[in-house]
Amino acid sequence: MNDNNKMLQAVAWDDETQAVILLDQRALPDTEKYIACQSVEQVANCIENMTVRGAPAIGITAAYGIALAALNSDRLEITDNNYKLKIINQAFERLAKTRPTAVNLFTALERMRACFENNKENLKLNNLLLEEAKIIHDEDIANNKRMGEFGAKLLPDDAVILTHCNAGAIATGGHGTALGVLRSAREAGKKIKVYADETRPLFQGARLTAWELARDNFDVTLITDSMAGALMKSKKISAVIVGADRIAKNGDTANKIGTYGLSVIAKAHGVPFYIAAPFTTLDFKAESGADIPIEERSESEMRILVNNQHVPDSVKVWNPAFDVTPSENITAIITERGVFFPPFKFEN
Amino acid sequence: MNDNNKMLQAVAWDDETQAVILLDQRALPDTEKYIACQSVEQVANCIENMTVRGAPAIGITAAYGIALAALNSDRLEITDNNYKLKIINQAFERLAKTRPTAVNLFTALERMRACFENNKENLKLNNLLLEEAKIIHDEDIANNKRMGEFGAKLLPDDAVILTHCNAGAIATGGHGTALGVLRSAREAGKKIKVYADETRPLFQGARLTAWELARDNFDVTLITDSMAGALMKSKKISAVIVGADRIAKNGDTANKIGTYGLSVIAKAHGVPFYIAAPFTTLDFKAESGADIPIEERSESEMRILVNNQHVPDSVKVWNPAFDVTPSENITAIITERGVFFPPFKFEN
Repeated sequence: MNDNNKMLQAVAWDDETQAVILLDQRALPDTEKYIACQSVEQVANCIENMTVRGAPAIGITAAYGIALAALNSDRLEITDNNYKLKIINQAFERLAKTRPTAVNLFTALERMRACFENNKENLKLNNLLLEEAKIIHDEDIANNKRMGEFGAKLLPDDAVILTHCNAGAIATGGHGTALGVLRSAREAGKKIKVYADETRPLFQGARLTAWELARDNFDVTLITDSMAGALMKSKKISAVIVGADRIAKNGDTANKIGTYGLSVIAKAHGVPFYIAAPFTTLDFKAESGADIPIEERSESEMRILVNNQHVPDSVKVWNPAFDVTPSENITAIITERGVFFPPFKFEN
Repeated sequence: MNDNNKMLQAVAWDDETQAVILLDQRALPDTEKYIACQSVEQVANCIENMTVRGAPAIGITAAYGIALAALNSDRLEITDNNYKLKIINQAFERLAKTRPTAVNLFTALERMRACFENNKENLKLNNLLLEEAKIIHDEDIANNKRMGEFGAKLLPDDAVILTHCNAGAIATGGHGTALGVLRSAREAGKKIKVYADETRPLFQGARLTAWELARDNFDVTLITDSMAGALMKSKKISAVIVGADRIAKNGDTANKIGTYGLSVIAKAHGVPFYIAAPFTTLDFKAESGADIPIEERSESEMRILVNNQHVPDSVKVWNPAFDVTPSENITAIITERGVFFPPFKFEN
């Protein structure tokens, strides 16, 4: 575990057992249990089934997954270096196929790929890959803290915030993106009251954000996703702050399904709408939101509640995991490199 | 049972057992079971716990409840007419306290009260009250069919509709308000595709609307409440149609929580937003939405899923059952007296 073990951690590397340790977020808030992944396939499954979720956390997990592939190949006493490189290449392919929308996954894999390509024949390849994964992890925490400080300045001293899904410590290396801004604002002496919407179908807002914030002694109130309109109309909301899974060059932002609708409602009420995300969330290959692939997930996520099917098979189900918020609905994008305002112009 | 027994019925009077028969909507779609209420207290409980729900259905149920009070007082062999009148008065009071927002409850009770006051000394009081309740019920079905025909004309021949909560046959005496419009449009030869949002916290959209429409062979697809924005952006939606719990004189409309947010999103996308409701939903005492009381329901509805608590007690919960959609977000209000367009001017 790294030096942030006092805060909630979604992902950690355990040197002793050489395993990727993941907080099982499907079991929260009932149970705080951890899964030790000792194979790349296990890591990939945990990303797919959302044991670990949140764009930055997925990237970090995949990076550790590559290091794991290298270390495991030695454990298998593989003496043919070409075979070892093939195993690592397979790990890259497998992990890239886990989830399509969050770009951090691909950014982290690209960094690991560069480290791998530069050190293929290096006897210390394993250590270098593990070191790179740890740097990606540490940088993510540092970036969150930096964007937290930038974002905190945007909030009034007595702020009432609405957030969607979970862009917290457990969606990242630690501290959080959207929730990191709230943590930094509180550290700066601001008073923060939070509304978390429950975020159907997987209830990340109810199960993760509300729980994470309550555990951290924030004043947090849960609403259903459908209450956001009534909330913004009847109470003074200072800002909506959410994370991001991928940001196009023009600022269009893919994030958990429902984000777009919130942005429309926020705009209608004159409520600032902030995205908080590390710069790695920017996809310079995507000109606009139209270039961002949107994952559609299993219908069972909407049909079944705690093993009880409440929607008959005769009803069709549409279950996109994300949507795209057009840049004109976004007040500012908060990154570790500063706060960007429209018209968005990003440089790599 | 009346002559509409081929359609789904939320409420019926059974002459043989002198009981109010209610479809237990809490058990849907798993089980289609009926509860026979033989006391006013039982009827009141069934309204409160949402065994029966939907503004018009609640009004009809309460009307039968008053008839039940009168009939039961005879069953108890009460010879003192003043005591009987007191029992009926208590029934009025009890039923009026069940749920605050839907005005149809109060309108139905007022009609029953007028019948009661005019026939206090009439030996046929019981029969007259039961007759009045049946008329209220039959009129509701007839009104739904009439508003269905008016509303159907507003839809294109190939319509894709989004609806919220359940304003169907089982929210009314039969046929439905919003879903009645869809039934009438189909009867008029139009092709209708429906998106139903699930309507947290009680899932009336998922459990009732999607089920009711699939049972009636409509092409219906379920979305979460949070997907409405992505839906209106990515697919061509002809109109949003919802029911109403209370409409103020200026057209502001209270309906299931989430309706207001939908209206904002519809407006931003240029999608017509229709309210379908019987004229009795109009509250001429309410100048605007600010005069409409909004029920706040139990926190447990949001904390607990199928007996599993997924939200810790440390998290606060806000659970308003309804919200108010301002008249400027409403394209038209469809009633049995015709279609009203803004600026809304209603006359009693």
